[in-house]
Amino acid sequence: MEKPAETSCPIHDPIQQRWSPRSFSDRPVEKENLIRIFEAARWASSCFNEQPWQFIVATKGDPEEYERMLSCLVEGNQEWAKLAPVLILTVAKSTFDHNAKGNPHAWHDVGLAVGNLVIQATTLGLSLHQMAGILPDRIREVYGVPQGFEPVTALALGYAGDPTLLPDELCQREQAPRTRKPLSELVFSETWGQTASIVK
Amino acid sequence: MEKPAETSCPIHDPIQQRWSPRSFSDRPVEKENLIRIFEAARWASSCFNEQPWQFIVATKGDPEEYERMLSCLVEGNQEWAKLAPVLILTVAKSTFDHNAKGNPHAWHDVGLAVGNLVIQATTLGLSLHQMAGILPDRIREVYGVPQGFEPVTALALGYAGDPTLLPDELCQREQAPRTRKPLSELVFSETWGQTASIVK
Repeated sequence: MEKPAETSCPIHDPIQQRWSPRSFSDRPVEKENLIRIFEAARWASSCFNEQPWQFIVATKGDPEEYERMLSCLVEGNQEWAKLAPVLILTVAKSTFDHNAKGNPHAWHDVGLAVGNLVIQATTLGLSLHQMAGILPDRIREVYGVPQGFEPVTALALGYAGDPTLLPDELCQREQAPRTRKPLSELVFSETWGQTASIVK
Repeated sequence: MEKPAETSCPIHDPIQQRWSPRSFSDRPVEKENLIRIFEAARWASSCFNEQPWQFIVATKGDPEEYERMLSCLVEGNQEWAKLAPVLILTVAKSTFDHNAKGNPHAWHDVGLAVGNLVIQATTLGLSLHQMAGILPDRIREVYGVPQGFEPVTALALGYAGDPTLLPDELCQREQAPRTRKPLSELVFSETWGQTASIVK
């Protein structure tokens, strides 16, 4: 199932093709593809090149570890994410290595790294769904995440599956069109809220 | 000048090619390419599809507006960013539209949108350098950014220029190799700090 973005102009193909499915096949993700998605994340830019991103990964190849990670998601996400052969937690380092002060860009830079990761996954034919619905305290406890690090999101990763195997409501959401605000509400010039002439 | 990442395995070409130069040519960026980079940003994923990203743009085609935006960067960034034909400010909406509560993922999701933007720029042959070194209070004042919105970064955008036109110290930094932490320090499984077997 494909759901390319209905863009107003041509954009880079994997950006157009990427979307966030809830259905996954049980085909495992090859080790070399997992390495490639993390390698892509690794080369993101970051404030002071601090690279404040960490990942914790679990695959269905190790059912016990997989179940532990699944239990770190809110229930509504467990319902469908349990189909994905790979789960990943993202964690931000909230202080700078170079001066131990707070890094206000830590979560932003995790976003940049995950941005690379999801584009890389898309080019490999993989589907990925990001979740804010996680249990940060449970993640800290289960994995011993130290002070100064913050769980940010979970990622469900795998090859596309059959959406009709989802519960009815999720199956309908899976097939709903993708929507975004128009560029005129996002790109300003001169003053706040004034659409930039370049996007008119 | 190219500085492809020295990756441990093949990754998607624009991710490998992307880097953060400080030298730009004076060639203007075509309007259609500016639209395409914002269109790519627009299709990023976000928590509750809130799309908490906004952009303010200034080009050298309007020198007065360009100077206003340049004055919103810290001095060390003005020194080289003044070469870029396009400057962009990124702004996060820090509360959800759907319930007016704080959106802890706002900066993360701006990172996802900028991740798309920079990959799109790279595929168009453009160079982009992200800056955390901005003057948020000045941005609020100059552009009338309302409460509930937070300036995050500035972006310098343009075609590659001659690094030898930069001041000596910046020219040397421009030519230094790109470095990242190894995957073994980023990708864990079972417990915090334990390298995942898939990246060994």
